[in-house]
Amino acid sequence: TKFAYVRNFELPDPLLPDTYLVCRLDGHSFHRFSDEHGFAKPNDERALQLMDHAAKSVMIEFKDIMLAFGESDEFSFLFRKSTNLYNRRQSKILTTLTSYFTSCYVLYWSQYFPDTPLRYPPSFDGRIVVYPTERAIRDYFAWRQADTHINNLYNTTFWALIQKGGQTATEAHTTLKGTVSATKHEMLFSRFGINYNEISQRFKKGSVIVREIVAPESSDKGEKLEPPFDPFHQQCSKAKKNKLETTVEVLHCDIIGEEFWLPRRHLLEN
Amino acid sequence: TKFAYVRNFELPDPLLPDTYLVCRLDGHSFHRFSDEHGFAKPNDERALQLMDHAAKSVMIEFKDIMLAFGESDEFSFLFRKSTNLYNRRQSKILTTLTSYFTSCYVLYWSQYFPDTPLRYPPSFDGRIVVYPTERAIRDYFAWRQADTHINNLYNTTFWALIQKGGQTATEAHTTLKGTVSATKHEMLFSRFGINYNEISQRFKKGSVIVREIVAPESSDKGEKLEPPFDPFHQQCSKAKKNKLETTVEVLHCDIIGEEFWLPRRHLLEN
Amino acid sequence: TKFAYVRNFELPDPLLPDTYLVCRLDGHSFHRFSDEHGFAKPNDERALQLMDHAAKSVMIEFKDIMLAFGESDEFSFLFRKSTNLYNRRQSKILTTLTSYFTSCYVLYWSQYFPDTPLRYPPSFDGRIVVYPTERAIRDYFAWRQADTHINNLYNTTFWALIQKGGQTATEAHTTLKGTVSATKHEMLFSRFGINYNEISQRFKKGSVIVREIVAPESSDKGEKLEPPFDPFHQQCSKAKKNKLETTVEVLHCDIIGEEFWLPRRHLLEN
Amino acid sequence: TKFAYVRNFELPDPLLPDTYLVCRLDGHSFHRFSDEHGFAKPNDERALQLMDHAAKSVMIEFKDIMLAFGESDEFSFLFRKSTNLYNRRQSKILTTLTSYFTSCYVLYWSQYFPDTPLRYPPSFDGRIVVYPTERAIRDYFAWRQADTHINNLYNTTFWALIQKGGQTATEAHTTLKGTVSATKHEMLFSRFGINYNEISQRFKKGSVIVREIVAPESSDKGEKLEPPFDPFHQQCSKAKKNKLETTVEVLHCDIIGEEFWLPRRHLLEN
Ligand SMILES: Nc1nc2c(ncn2[C@H]2C[C@H](O)[C@@H](COP(=O)(O)OP(=O)(O)OP(=O)(O)O)O2)c(=O)[nH]1
Ligand SMILES: Nc1nc2c(ncn2[C@H]2C[C@H](O)[C@@H](COP(=O)(O)OP(=O)(O)OP(=O)(O)O)O2)c(=O)[nH]1
Ligand SMILES: Nc1nc2c(ncn2[C@H]2C[C@H](O)[C@@H](COP(=O)(O)OP(=O)(O)OP(=O)(O)O)O2)c(=O)[nH]1
Ligand SMILES: Nc1nc2c(ncn2[C@H]2C[C@H](O)[C@@H](COP(=O)(O)OP(=O)(O)OP(=O)(O)O)O2)c(=O)[nH]1
Ligand SMILES: O=P(O)(O)OP(=O)(O)OP(=O)(O)O
Ligand SMILES: O=P(O)(O)OP(=O)(O)OP(=O)(O)O
Ligand SMILES: O=P(O)(O)OP(=O)(O)OP(=O)(O)O
Ligand SMILES: O=P(O)(O)OP(=O)(O)OP(=O)(O)O
Ligand SMILES: [Mg+2]
Ligand SMILES: [Mg+2]
Ligand SMILES: [Mg+2]
Ligand SMILES: [Mg+2]
Ligand SMILES: [Mg+2]
Ligand SMILES: [Mg+2]
Ligand SMILES: [Mg+2]
Ligand SMILES: [Mg+2]
Ligand SMILES: [Mg+2]
Ligand SMILES: [Mg+2]
Ligand SMILES: [Mg+2]
Ligand SMILES: [Mg+2]
Repeated sequence: TKFAYVRNFELPDPLLPDTYLVCRLDGHSFHRFSDEHGFAKPNDERALQLMDHAAKSVMIEFKDIMLAFGESDEFSFLFRKSTNLYNRRQSKILTTLTSYFTSCYVLYWSQYFPDTPLRYPPSFDGRIVVYPTERAIRDYFAWRQADTHINNLYNTTFWALIQKGGQTATEAHTTLKGTVSATKHEMLFSRFGINYNEISQRFKKGSVIVREIVAPESSDKGEKLEPPFDPFHQQCSKAKKNKLETTVEVLHCDIIGEEFWLPRRHLLEN
Repeated sequence: TKFAYVRNFELPDPLLPDTYLVCRLDGHSFHRFSDEHGFAKPNDERALQLMDHAAKSVMIEFKDIMLAFGESDEFSFLFRKSTNLYNRRQSKILTTLTSYFTSCYVLYWSQYFPDTPLRYPPSFDGRIVVYPTERAIRDYFAWRQADTHINNLYNTTFWALIQKGGQTATEAHTTLKGTVSATKHEMLFSRFGINYNEISQRFKKGSVIVREIVAPESSDKGEKLEPPFDPFHQQCSKAKKNKLETTVEVLHCDIIGEEFWLPRRHLLEN
Repeated sequence: TKFAYVRNFELPDPLLPDTYLVCRLDGHSFHRFSDEHGFAKPNDERALQLMDHAAKSVMIEFKDIMLAFGESDEFSFLFRKSTNLYNRRQSKILTTLTSYFTSCYVLYWSQYFPDTPLRYPPSFDGRIVVYPTERAIRDYFAWRQADTHINNLYNTTFWALIQKGGQTATEAHTTLKGTVSATKHEMLFSRFGINYNEISQRFKKGSVIVREIVAPESSDKGEKLEPPFDPFHQQCSKAKKNKLETTVEVLHCDIIGEEFWLPRRHLLEN
Repeated sequence: TKFAYVRNFELPDPLLPDTYLVCRLDGHSFHRFSDEHGFAKPNDERALQLMDHAAKSVMIEFKDIMLAFGESDEFSFLFRKSTNLYNRRQSKILTTLTSYFTSCYVLYWSQYFPDTPLRYPPSFDGRIVVYPTERAIRDYFAWRQADTHINNLYNTTFWALIQKGGQTATEAHTTLKGTVSATKHEMLFSRFGINYNEISQRFKKGSVIVREIVAPESSDKGEKLEPPFDPFHQQCSKAKKNKLETTVEVLHCDIIGEEFWLPRRHLLEN
């Protein structure tokens, strides 16, 4: 039709080739959402498992995601450098991922909250950040996990002071103001008999969802990984037969140190 | 933490001020989705009503959306030029809207498909297009509605040929190849006794969801519209008291001609 | 060659269609440059004429520029909304214009400064700003011309205090701190016998370079203006015969009020 | 003034941190320019020296450029990854560099073409390309130098066929169509006694301008190199004292192989 010229206003939005893409989702106003749906404080196991379920589903759907990290109401997804998903069109990648995650969250809600119907539609914001180096990716995930640790120690102590110590929120904030880690550990243990080290790994470390490569012989199920994109030999049609089988595992381990990364070169290399 | 520098890689993405923003969502692989969930052909009334429900919810949530138009698996939303939602950050606006729509679609699914559980999570892609002029916005919506008309006439005849005429899909395509509108109308009427004019307006015109301004005296319920953004007097704190009440109506009318737009200057003006 | 894949990193940078483009150039470190080349203070007629010469040359070279405004070490150029120069590629438009202006500035330098050889290469920064509305364009040029007026009145008084009043720079700044326009006019007149109204229009109003349309009968010389871009009839091959002749005039008039714009609808319309 | 709101339309344009920036300039319509100014064919020594002079001046002015490569009417400049020039604002970097180069070209023109006044202002387009990896940078420069070689061999033979072989341009193109390198070498030698290997390195390899680090003891003149940007210790005020002295050298050597790069790790590392 004569109106079709309006498509000329749709401008291209390609992301820089050969860079890591991180997509981070975060629950919209989950302060209120967690309240209205009676989330346990400071950590609701069911809510976190639902997040993990949605994130795992995303990784099964989007094969170029190698790693994800979740905590609280957020999840970060790492696409391999060589991904050519939707020709690296920013809005397409960002919206299909955000939408799929949201859809899973709502669809699987009742599996985790069988007695709590959704009172209104939960939603998530999303953003894509482009990272050029392995160093930056390592530091990105370290940033998120360090944040998990800091928040969890604070929140655990804060809610102990309230729930077990009988303080008000204001009093608890005052009690904690300026305290270092060791003081909070000590406070938890001496006042409330809580050994922080015994707290669930999920709460302390967040959720690490990792794409693992399956040894070839056992390769009759699981996801397939595209062979690396090679700028010199861009056509990889036949190479596709060489796709590696992969599975997706949920862990609650440290990702700041070397141990996690050393045996998993495939996460960062092509 | 020492890792926080990774935030420096998050670059700003503001949209040009004082322009219309159109956000268009489209169902991801709804060819398959409609199939797997037994959508009626060519139009499934329930599916379309569910889309409308989700879109209406979006408009109630995002007050700066003045108009929306839906057909098939897609919906377009028009933000007023003066919107300052999320400081016009592109990814924020785009993802929160896409996520909220998706969430509604899944949450309200069972109201429209009580006997058809979701077999997998439906999702939507989204994009924002910036339009500088009223003319372009009028043409944008005309483009979508003309598309609705063309597709619906084709699909109605196509499925009549199959469902009532006993043709295969290939035969039906061949029958229709190169035919003009009048021929299809004629074919529907003479062969199948279908008067195209009597077909549901929803199918022929799509869904038009419009924010209407409520007369001030009756202003005790409904949404509020922010006063216009004025570049010369940017602070509008007190002006906020003057917010107009609005409601959101679903119509199935023509939006190509003047009749729709003339009495609704508020949709395009500030 | 096998290296050509590096071109994939060159991303598209189209500017939004059907919007006004303003390109503003500004002399790089002209505080130092004017000093080292002995510019008269506060205004050097030769320097300003050289700027005008370069800007006029730019307008003769780039036919889609309708208007330019210059003051001090800067010039702003307005492209018509419908320009399709370099398919509206941002970097191409921006750099070719900036480069051409610079080239003219250096090439014509000696015509205006016959006794002052260039001591080092002068340069300019440039930026393109996209404006969606006529109102914004009017205000853009009003912004620059109001700036010219304010700066010129200040500088004229400042240098009178120094050159004729024997003050130091610090003293002159102190004398002027907090004074309104009327006070400066008065100071100029009573202390130094300068009637500000009699100062050169060039200094007070800046330079306005405007593309004027030549009446058809006299059309045997001058520049040609492309017929308007029409989204509905995009091919304008034959229309090209209808190109209008144009000339480029340098004025030093008010562009804030209506008088300038009313008889020159062609500057803002297609 | 009340007009200053128009600055809100100036959107930020930061380039991704910690990536290599390549700025490539190319003469605007130098086919015509070389003709009108009587450039020798296929290579004009003076024109190439003038380009080198301008490029070298650019490198002296912009300390974060580590390497440049020039051929024909183009020059590419490599900024180190850690550059924070103009806070990595794209238009600022791009235009100041393009403008400065142009200015040098015009200003130094008469040193190389003393008997050929400029008939009109030469200009250059410019673009910035962001590269995330060392590999891509190596390949970028290999791409340009391979292009130099291919073009020069073709042009040398082409002009020999015309100037010495008496062919027309069309005949020469036909003669060369489909020929490989060896054939052109052979043709040059057997028909015209030209040993391609003896042709000037400048023509065969282009111009390589490299920032070299001066040994500390001899550090009393030359340019200074900022210490590397370290994301973990962003403030480098005191570190500035440690600036390394650098000089800028023009070479005509191979940059495709390892020899060039191995002893010059500083070009690609921080
Ligand atoms: N009780 C409880 N609350 C949680 C849990 N996980 C997340 N939340 C709540 C606590 C925080 O208020 C909120 C997450 O913080 P955010 O910074 O994302 O803020 P919020 O989502 O409210 O606003 P936003 O739209 O993201 O700016 O979600 C949980 O397991 N239990
Ligand atoms: N049977 C039936 N199908 C519908 C209805 N509405 C939409 N669909 C189907 C028909 C089309 O195959 C599809 C919409 O076309 P699209 O161009 O959006 O393609 P699709 O969503 O398959 O792929 P995409 O991911 O958007 O590229 O959805 C309906 O009411 N009934
Ligand atoms: N004496 C004299 N100086 C002038 C004249 N026109 C411009 N200038 C000088 C005065 C200002 O210091 C300077 C223009 O101010 P800018 O804000 O553009 O600063 P400048 O160019 O120094 O730095 P920049 O690189 O633009 O940030 O140029 C003139 O006619 N006479
Ligand atoms: N005779 C001669 N011509 C040269 C020399 N260096 C460059 N040129 C000319 C030959 C080519 O026609 C032209 C460079 O080719 P380009 O692809 O850059 O095309 P041109 O600059 O004409 O157009 P453009 O504005 O870059 O698209 O400059 C030289 O040393 N001698
Ligand atoms: O934690 P973030 O990144 O979501 O930070 P924020 O303060 O919520 O800011 P934003 O508006 O970017 O979501
Ligand atoms: O109808 P659209 O705009 O979705 O067009 P498309 O052919 O699906 O293309 P896209 O990849 O932009 O969704
Ligand atoms: O007057 P401008 O726009 O040049 O403003 P500035 O303060 O010089 O800032 P910029 O770094 O954008 O040139
Ligand atoms: O050689 P380039 O990169 O200049 O290629 P081009 O064909 O001249 O294209 P462009 O319009 O990008 O200068
Ligand atoms: Mg946030
Ligand atoms: Mg949140
Ligand atoms: Mg959060
Ligand atoms: Mg689509
Ligand atoms: Mg679809
Ligand atoms: Mg569709
Ligand atoms: Mg400036
Ligand atoms: Mg300046
Ligand atoms: Mg200035
Ligand atoms: Mg080019
Ligand atoms: Mg060229
Ligand atoms: Mg060239």
